[in-house]
Amino acid sequence: MPPSRPPSPISRVLVLGAGNFGSCLADHLADSEHKVFLWARDAAQVEMMNVEHKNSKYLKDHVFPASIQAIGPELPNEDVLHQMDVILFAVPTQALRTTLQSIHSKLRRDDSPLLIFVNKGIESETQALTLEIIADTCGPDIARIATFLSGPSFAKEIVRRQPTSVSVVSFSQEHAERATNLFHQPWFRCYTGQDPIGVELAGALKNVYAIAAGMADGMGFENNTRAAIVTRALAEMTRIGVAYGASPLTFLTLAGVGDLMLTCSSPTSRNYTVGHRLGKGERLEHVLETLGSVAEGVTTAKGAQKIIEDLRVPAPLATGVYKVLYEGKTVEAAAQWLMAQPPVAELELPVEAPVKAILRKLGVPDAREAK
Amino acid sequence: MPPSRPPSPISRVLVLGAGNFGSCLADHLADSEHKVFLWARDAAQVEMMNVEHKNSKYLKDHVFPASIQAIGPELPNEDVLHQMDVILFAVPTQALRTTLQSIHSKLRRDDSPLLIFVNKGIESETQALTLEIIADTCGPDIARIATFLSGPSFAKEIVRRQPTSVSVVSFSQEHAERATNLFHQPWFRCYTGQDPIGVELAGALKNVYAIAAGMADGMGFENNTRAAIVTRALAEMTRIGVAYGASPLTFLTLAGVGDLMLTCSSPTSRNYTVGHRLGKGERLEHVLETLGSVAEGVTTAKGAQKIIEDLRVPAPLATGVYKVLYEGKTVEAAAQWLMAQPPVAELELPVEAPVKAILRKLGVPDAREAK
Repeated sequence: MPPSRPPSPISRVLVLGAGNFGSCLADHLADSEHKVFLWARDAAQVEMMNVEHKNSKYLKDHVFPASIQAIGPELPNEDVLHQMDVILFAVPTQALRTTLQSIHSKLRRDDSPLLIFVNKGIESETQALTLEIIADTCGPDIARIATFLSGPSFAKEIVRRQPTSVSVVSFSQEHAERATNLFHQPWFRCYTGQDPIGVELAGALKNVYAIAAGMADGMGFENNTRAAIVTRALAEMTRIGVAYGASPLTFLTLAGVGDLMLTCSSPTSRNYTVGHRLGKGERLEHVLETLGSVAEGVTTAKGAQKIIEDLRVPAPLATGVYKVLYEGKTVEAAAQWLMAQPPVAELELPVEAPVKAILRKLGVPDAREAK
Repeated sequence: MPPSRPPSPISRVLVLGAGNFGSCLADHLADSEHKVFLWARDAAQVEMMNVEHKNSKYLKDHVFPASIQAIGPELPNEDVLHQMDVILFAVPTQALRTTLQSIHSKLRRDDSPLLIFVNKGIESETQALTLEIIADTCGPDIARIATFLSGPSFAKEIVRRQPTSVSVVSFSQEHAERATNLFHQPWFRCYTGQDPIGVELAGALKNVYAIAAGMADGMGFENNTRAAIVTRALAEMTRIGVAYGASPLTFLTLAGVGDLMLTCSSPTSRNYTVGHRLGKGERLEHVLETLGSVAEGVTTAKGAQKIIEDLRVPAPLATGVYKVLYEGKTVEAAAQWLMAQPPVAELELPVEAPVKAILRKLGVPDAREAK
């Protein structure tokens, strides 16, 4: 392993959210000698991290660096926030609006910390991307410099320093580079980009396609079919992204195809499991009842279908998953419907993109123009 | 399974080459009710196919349609060739020049059959793509209408009608559509495109990256690393492709990322095995001596390195594989070298593509302009 890269500068980082990914990134940043504060909403979790350096819920076998200081369960106050160089949002998308509303008013106007977001998914009620939630709560100026980290990154591999590479993107190249500088290590390579819309869409939609991949495997289909599903999913994501104002090339990246292929070949994920059990012939109600928690792709499939209809781009795989989950179609019927589609050109991108209101809201030009 | 799609027209197809992929496509076409002639260079193989409807070397458990007529070991004569609507070239790339030289003079000038190519790889001595071999032997007019079929397609899954999707491409949209019409079935979906250069480069280079994926797995790295290798391989292929005159979006397709991800997660392939054994610490000489036949990626790594140097595009993964295979670098040193590369922008495409002589040779404009 090449030697670690001492960070310059050493940053004070507040990680909001001690879930699987938040605590793994806190671990990575502390391992890189940054000063890390980890906020958890559960008092017992805060105490266990500070005393035993363990997370009671996630990565249970892992001992975290003793330098991590856990705080909570109340959200940090102004004094704490003003000391931070970086705030990393690792809360669920559905909780982000409330969290930002609470945090934003306490930040210094003149010297805001670097804001990095790692949550994925679409807000259920509004179909809003995180960028829109940021713009709504903090204003477009903050949204334009918000930075996103995404890519194929299982937490349990990151805490063992398994070589991992991610996309780090922002409309602002300067902010993407600051975030890269914070995270980059030989075993955690960061690649910068400037298309957060494409990255966000890819991160949300991948969970729908993981359900499709699970279904195909459950039906007994093998490698050719899975590779076709991942690739056609990518073509659909690219079409949706272009209609949204994203660059088609974003879907070639770690946050695009990299994360998609990881998620679609991850038999332990909840999304894949929902699909797999349906593909094996279980009834939908039974699968959802016995799953314990909600699989994110199930919720996203509904929001995605609305987006697909609004943008009028064909996305038959996502639509097929939607029909199984919400319209009572059987998996077999959905598969037959997909296979019976007429042959088409492989990459039919919308020529005139019905660019989404989000770009106007943020005051940025069409992201496909951004380099 | 949806009902099969009766072909219109029913075609007379000559498949040249009874290897794994050639015989599987002969099977698929005969299953689709085309009249198929399968040429094998081995008399015993010809007889076994005609009498027992089996292939003595490949897909040994499979019974082929009795309608397939095997011919050989001599190459078919003019009379046979003149009856064909389609000739499918499934011979190894290293044998293609000789085969085309022999076949071309026997074809009708005025009514040439549809020519479809499924071989992959670069000609060792010349680093020529198949398109160049066709142009050299048959002239640019034939190369411009030559059609290529490529994608994630294990033969043993195709003969069991497992849902499979492939790219079918030609500079000539009309010819790509004719080939799609020949092959398309619900369980064998064809997606058309018009960038054969991109498709050919992807098909050749994937074998080099399969060696890299095998190395990483052999060193004990897991899912994050493999997804990163596939994605960064894709970025390299895209850079090389753009420098060659291909469209970057071609690498998003079934022939691009679809086939790459299949090949990089295929522990039974020879390319992956070479990498895996090197990653485990075996000596290169011992691996190559005991492998039996040559792994195509080993040869391609050499040609690819020459292309990378000629085009002056950075492709550190391919170069790392080359250094291990031809310059005595250890796998560990290559991995450390890769991980120590400075952070970069994720998709840095050549702005001024040093467009390859091949485009001029074929008389086609820069393929990135083609839709």
